[in-house]
Amino acid sequence: MTAARTMRLGLFINPTGHHQASWRHPDADADAGVNFGHYRRVAELAEQHCFDMLFLADNQGVRETDPETRRRVAQYIANFEPFTLLSALAAVTDRIGLTCTASLSYNYPFQIARKFASLDFISGGRSGWNMVTSERSEAPNFGIDDRLDHDERYRRGEEVVRACLGLWDSWEDDAFLRDKATGIFSDLDKLHALDHAGEHVRVRGPLNVPRMPQGYPVLVQAGQSEAGRSFAAKYAEVMFTTLLLVDRARELRSEMRERASAHGRPPDEIKLMPGLAVVTGRTDAEAQERFEELQSLLHPAVALSMLSAKMGYPDLDGYPLDRPLPRSAKPADERSGGFDRWIEIAEREQLSLRQLAYRAAGSRAGLQIVGSYRRVAELMEEWFVTGAADGFNIQPAYFPGMFEEFVGGVMPELRSRGLVRERYEGRTLRDHLGLPRPQWGSRSGTRR
Amino acid sequence: MTAARTMRLGLFINPTGHHQASWRHPDADADAGVNFGHYRRVAELAEQHCFDMLFLADNQGVRETDPETRRRVAQYIANFEPFTLLSALAAVTDRIGLTCTASLSYNYPFQIARKFASLDFISGGRSGWNMVTSERSEAPNFGIDDRLDHDERYRRGEEVVRACLGLWDSWEDDAFLRDKATGIFSDLDKLHALDHAGEHVRVRGPLNVPRMPQGYPVLVQAGQSEAGRSFAAKYAEVMFTTLLLVDRARELRSEMRERASAHGRPPDEIKLMPGLAVVTGRTDAEAQERFEELQSLLHPAVALSMLSAKMGYPDLDGYPLDRPLPRSAKPADERSGGFDRWIEIAEREQLSLRQLAYRAAGSRAGLQIVGSYRRVAELMEEWFVTGAADGFNIQPAYFPGMFEEFVGGVMPELRSRGLVRERYEGRTLRDHLGLPRPQWGSRSGTRR
Repeated sequence: MTAARTMRLGLFINPTGHHQASWRHPDADADAGVNFGHYRRVAELAEQHCFDMLFLADNQGVRETDPETRRRVAQYIANFEPFTLLSALAAVTDRIGLTCTASLSYNYPFQIARKFASLDFISGGRSGWNMVTSERSEAPNFGIDDRLDHDERYRRGEEVVRACLGLWDSWEDDAFLRDKATGIFSDLDKLHALDHAGEHVRVRGPLNVPRMPQGYPVLVQAGQSEAGRSFAAKYAEVMFTTLLLVDRARELRSEMRERASAHGRPPDEIKLMPGLAVVTGRTDAEAQERFEELQSLLHPAVALSMLSAKMGYPDLDGYPLDRPLPRSAKPADERSGGFDRWIEIAEREQLSLRQLAYRAAGSRAGLQIVGSYRRVAELMEEWFVTGAADGFNIQPAYFPGMFEEFVGGVMPELRSRGLVRERYEGRTLRDHLGLPRPQWGSRSGTRR
Repeated sequence: MTAARTMRLGLFINPTGHHQASWRHPDADADAGVNFGHYRRVAELAEQHCFDMLFLADNQGVRETDPETRRRVAQYIANFEPFTLLSALAAVTDRIGLTCTASLSYNYPFQIARKFASLDFISGGRSGWNMVTSERSEAPNFGIDDRLDHDERYRRGEEVVRACLGLWDSWEDDAFLRDKATGIFSDLDKLHALDHAGEHVRVRGPLNVPRMPQGYPVLVQAGQSEAGRSFAAKYAEVMFTTLLLVDRARELRSEMRERASAHGRPPDEIKLMPGLAVVTGRTDAEAQERFEELQSLLHPAVALSMLSAKMGYPDLDGYPLDRPLPRSAKPADERSGGFDRWIEIAEREQLSLRQLAYRAAGSRAGLQIVGSYRRVAELMEEWFVTGAADGFNIQPAYFPGMFEEFVGGVMPELRSRGLVRERYEGRTLRDHLGLPRPQWGSRSGTRR
C-alpha cells in the first residue's frame, strides 16, 4: 500500500553515529570516517528502503577542545571530504539523493558551483546542497581573518548563493548541440557569462559545466535564527529543523510556508524536515537499555565539555561533580540563552553537575526519541499527519548497528501505515521530494 | 612473459580525444565530458590492460577565443570537475591509479590537501597530483587579480606544495588508536598542527583526515622551463614531458635524475613519461587515413586559431589562406619562439597559411605518431630501452574508438616484447610505479 502522500526521509550520516560515544559501541565501525566500505553499505541499505537522500554535514577543520576531551572524540577529526565521498557513492547507487554541506564562508563560489554541477551529472540528478555559513573557527585554515558578525555573514552567504545560481545558468539547457555533421558544438547565443562583482564576491564565469540535470541542486538550509529563516524563505527547498515540541514545529512550518509564498514561491516547495535522533529496540525497555549503554561509554570530561558548549562555554572546572551547578557560574557574555535553559532543567529535576552533563551529552540539538519501533513510528506519524513535518532527517545513535535496527524495526511500522514509499517513482532527488525541475533563469534572474 | 623492468603507462583522458576535431569523429562520444558511463568504460578498459594510471588535466574556466572557433571546440567547456570524477571512478575500479590536476594558483591548500587525502582513502592508495601553476585566464573566476610573473608564480606554487605536504603530516601514521576499551580515539602526541604563515600562503591545520594510505599522493609535474625543472627536481615523482626527439629526451631524463640526486633523492624516484599522441591502425596506410579523416573534420577557423596560439597570437586575419604567411606577421611582443619555429616549418616545406594551420592544429605539444600498431610499439620500445623514457602518457586521438584500437593493437605488440606488465602486482599507485611509501615527515620536514 502506498499513501497518496508519504513522508520524506533523509539519513544524516555522522560516520560512527550521532551519540558522542557512538564510536565505542560494539555495533559501530570506529574507523567509519575514512572507511568507504562502511558508507557504501549504509548507503545501499538506505536505498533499499527508498530513503529520499543521504545527508553529510561538514566542518573544514579540527575543533579545539581541552586535550582530555579532544583525544576521546571522533567527530570531524578523521573524515572524508564530502564531495569525494558523495561522488564515489553516486557510482555505486542508483536512486538515492546525495546532499552535503558546502560552506558559504570559506569556499570559492566557482568551485562550489562546479562541484555540485559535476556531482549532479555523475549521479544523474541526485545532488543537494546544504548551505551553511561557517563557524569562525575554520577561517585560519583559509588564511582568512573573518570579522563578519552573524547577520553580515548571512548577507555575504546570500551573495555566494546568488553567484552560484548565476553560474548554474551560464548555459541554457539546450546550449550544447554537439552536432557532428555541422561541427557546431555549442550555441553561443545560449551562453550567459555571469560577471558578478558584488560587495563580498567577484566571479566572472561562465561555468565550464552544462546546465545540470536538476537545473540547480536541491537547496537545503538549517539555521532557525531570523536571518536563517529569512534566507530559507527565499532559497531553501528543504529546511532541517531542531524544534522539540510538535506545536512549535507546526507553527514554524506554517510560518515558513507563508514566508515562501510571500516571495512568490509555492508553499509546497519548502519541505520542513526535523532532525530525529533515534535509539530504538523491540521494546521501550530495550531501547532505554541501549541508550544507557551509550551513556556509560561517555567519559566525564567529554560530557562536561558538551555541557559547557551548550551552556555558552562557562568554565566548569572546580565545581564539584556531585552537587548542583550554581547560577553564579553563568559567563558574563552569555547571550544565547543556553545557560539559563540548562540551569532550569537542573533545578527542575534536581540534577547534580554530573547528571546535567550526561543529560546534555546524551541529547542532540533537536528532536530525540528513545523507544520501541512502534513508539518511534507513532511519533513520526503524529508530527507528519498534524502538519508539523514533511518528513525527517534520521540520526541513528550509532552506525551501522542502530541504522539496521531502524530499517529493520521502524520502517515496517511506517510501511504498514502507508507513510513511506514502497519503491522509487522517479530518478532525481527533485522527483523524490516532489519538487519540479526549475526553468533556466528562474532562480538566478538571468535573462536572454 | 614479464620483463624484469616494464614501462609505465598513463592514459591521458581528454574527454572526446586529443585531436581538436575528435568530438566529430563517428567513433567518439561527443558528450563524453559529462557522461560518466563513458569514463567508466574507458577506465575499465585501461584497468584490464594494467595501465598504471588515468590522468586528467584541468582548466578552471572556459577559454575565450573568437566566436567562430569557440562554438566549434569541445575542450574545457562542458566537463566534469576532476575530483568528483576520479572519486566516482575510484568506486568502480580496483587497481588503476587516479591522477588529476589541481591548480597551485587558484585553490586553498587546505582543500587541495583534504581532497587528495580523501581520494587516497576512497581508492585504497591510488591518488596522484599533477601540480600546475595556472594560466592567468582563470583568475577572474576567483576574484583574483593575478599579477605574478612566471617565476614568482612557481615560487608561490612551491609554498602551496610545502603547505600541503605539512598538512598531510598533521597526524603520524599510528595517531588514530580508536581503542573502544579505553575510549582513546586519537593520540595527541602524534598530532602536529602546521601553523604555516609564509609569504603567499597562511594555513593553520591540522588536516581533518588521517595520514593517507600512500603517505602523500604521487607528485606529478609537467613544465619544462628552468623554473619547472628546478621544481620537479625537488618534488616530482613523475614528470610528463613534451620533447620530440629521442636524444633530447634522453638528455632530459639524465639531467632530471642527476638533479633529483643532488637533492638527496634516489634517481629512480623520478619517472620521465613523455606524452604520446597516437593515431594507429593495422597498417601505416590505415593510420594515415584515420589521421586525414580527423583533419578533414577541422574547420579552418579552428585550425587558424590553433596556429595563432602556437605562434604567440599573431593576428592572422586578412592574410590569404592559399599563400605563405609572411614573416612580417610576427607580433612585436612574441618572445616564446613559437612564431619563428612555425614560420621555419612553413618555409622549409613551402606550406601555405592554410596548410600550416592544419599542420599546427593536427599536432599536439609533444611526441606524436601516426602509424601501424607495430610502428607505435617500436617507437615506444626505442624510447624506453635507450633510456629516453620510463614510460608514456598515452593520448589517443579520439575516445573511445582510438583507445580501443590502442589496447587491441598496440598492447599485444608491447606484451609480446615483454615491455608491459601482464597483471598488477601491487595495490597502490606507488606500488605500480615502483615508488616506496614515504615515511611520515620525510617530505614535509615535520619533526616530533
